[in-house]
Amino acid sequence: MDEPDIHILSVGTALPGAPVDNATLADRFNMPSVWELWIDSFIGTRTRHFALDLETGTIRYSLADLGETAAAKALQGAGLRAADVDVMVLGTASPDMLMPATVNLIADRLGIDDVPTFQLQSGCSGAVQALDVAHKMLLSGRYRNALVLGAENCAKHIDLSTDAASLPTSEQVNGVLFGDGAGAVVLSTEPRPGTAVLRHVFLRLVGLGRAPGQTVEWFGRGDRDSDRQPISEDYKAIEQSVPSMAAETLEEMLEALDWKETDIDYLLPPQLSGTMTEKITERLDVPSAQEISCVVDIGNTGNALPFFQLERALPRMTTGDRTVGIAIESSKWIKAGFALEVC
Amino acid sequence: MDEPDIHILSVGTALPGAPVDNATLADRFNMPSVWELWIDSFIGTRTRHFALDLETGTIRYSLADLGETAAAKALQGAGLRAADVDVMVLGTASPDMLMPATVNLIADRLGIDDVPTFQLQSGCSGAVQALDVAHKMLLSGRYRNALVLGAENCAKHIDLSTDAASLPTSEQVNGVLFGDGAGAVVLSTEPRPGTAVLRHVFLRLVGLGRAPGQTVEWFGRGDRDSDRQPISEDYKAIEQSVPSMAAETLEEMLEALDWKETDIDYLLPPQLSGTMTEKITERLDVPSAQEISCVVDIGNTGNALPFFQLERALPRMTTGDRTVGIAIESSKWIKAGFALEVC
Repeated sequence: MDEPDIHILSVGTALPGAPVDNATLADRFNMPSVWELWIDSFIGTRTRHFALDLETGTIRYSLADLGETAAAKALQGAGLRAADVDVMVLGTASPDMLMPATVNLIADRLGIDDVPTFQLQSGCSGAVQALDVAHKMLLSGRYRNALVLGAENCAKHIDLSTDAASLPTSEQVNGVLFGDGAGAVVLSTEPRPGTAVLRHVFLRLVGLGRAPGQTVEWFGRGDRDSDRQPISEDYKAIEQSVPSMAAETLEEMLEALDWKETDIDYLLPPQLSGTMTEKITERLDVPSAQEISCVVDIGNTGNALPFFQLERALPRMTTGDRTVGIAIESSKWIKAGFALEVC
Repeated sequence: MDEPDIHILSVGTALPGAPVDNATLADRFNMPSVWELWIDSFIGTRTRHFALDLETGTIRYSLADLGETAAAKALQGAGLRAADVDVMVLGTASPDMLMPATVNLIADRLGIDDVPTFQLQSGCSGAVQALDVAHKMLLSGRYRNALVLGAENCAKHIDLSTDAASLPTSEQVNGVLFGDGAGAVVLSTEPRPGTAVLRHVFLRLVGLGRAPGQTVEWFGRGDRDSDRQPISEDYKAIEQSVPSMAAETLEEMLEALDWKETDIDYLLPPQLSGTMTEKITERLDVPSAQEISCVVDIGNTGNALPFFQLERALPRMTTGDRTVGIAIESSKWIKAGFALEVC
């Protein structure tokens, strides 16, 4: 193996506007105050940020806006200019349009030109998918620097005209679980002092024959009046499966890396919600590791979330430190993870 | 450079139902017979296939249906089973849902499990993007066989309730230009006698600061009543730019490959429409090459189209033959191409 090490030079993130707390949500949707307590105990997420103005319905930030801000910060952090970017990858479940792909609009705004770009349509495993594509592009020896993004803007899915109280609980969960945001990292074949090396990327579609745990429909010109269910989630299946899938992912990654549980200094667990993250980390037996979670403050930001975790983890990592990040997708069932080490 | 050769073992395609000719379209949309003549001369596309039943509005084939059929044929052609697939990539502009990604539904139906999957949100350059991701995955030495798909199902965009005669010409073009379909290839690090080697994949986002030539919106639960323009095209910009972009793509690829124009035996030009393809090939000065086009028979099938061209080209290629395929995306402006050689 004489493949080059791939280094994470920097990370940048973006959140739209001020945090929205549970009391504000309860007030906006005319829900009783017990609803706020239910969110606290059942979901465990305290605040999140929305690209949509909940009062006016105005979309204040597009996915391109959020992605541009995060990517600009990551480039600045790496000390790179647009012309230094050799390949660009975005993972998202909520692009601004179907065409052009939002990655190309972000590239254009940043002045990135004459490079390959990729946009992955993905759920919670999308950040890892984007890292994987960039990792393999860099490993090919054809490129030096990759700009990798994960971003969500779920404004299109929020129906402000809905009477929240009339919705089934599973629908109410959607309104409080998710948040908008974007994150970006710069990967490079060029080492810098103290940067983390991307040691392993793990991705596995699993659950053959299993029903999706989450579906999100889109509507075009011809079927806008369709009565198909726009969003559905099987929270029971998600709650049952994700902790064990996370444990399996960790086990398979450690085996591939030839690392032991006690080698891990920082653990970035899946971030479905505050309470789910607690259940997941209970199953991940890595007592020596510090957990890096942010879902309680920013909600489940899907493809963006691992970048927010990286933003908190990378500055703490020093020579010899090892970090494992895990993401589980429950639309179809996907195990995903990545491992970092500072050499 | 000791990277492995990546071979195309097989190709499979799928088209929904019977071909729909221009007379049938004119009849369905109550257009005068001169409209039919206008399509013949201005668009140059004679037939296309629709996943949607034009009479009843029923969606007879999903993207997953079309992709499954094409992929099963490609696997059969390669003599491989589901368990032999190590990584899977789909390029599409028209997924069935936002989540799960359609690639995962297709994998599941085929019995493909425990592998990384990727779905690229892309326009006409998507087949090349998918080939590129698979190519770099295989080059990493971690996988043997990749299943690569491109597919379109534009049913959601066709509004059968529209009075076609009242639409501007640019809108009418959309109804006759595009077709549905899917294609798939198996790429492998394992050589087979007479298989073509993927010598080069070329991708460049270009046109910094330039307005998109095509936009396609999607609508979620919250903005289904939005009056945003669902689809728009700047056909003048497309007509002006695509031939020169195709010529530049060819030139840049030949330089990277160190091939001459006269080395090319088969040319797979961009397939926007019958007449556009003529204008493009006029600009591509490769007199020795046989042109492989299929847009006149199946319409512009976007991400699927290069696979239909490959289906026609691969059986003709013999030892020493060289093929160049070119795709130009005009949503944001992307140059794309690939080069094959039988060794």
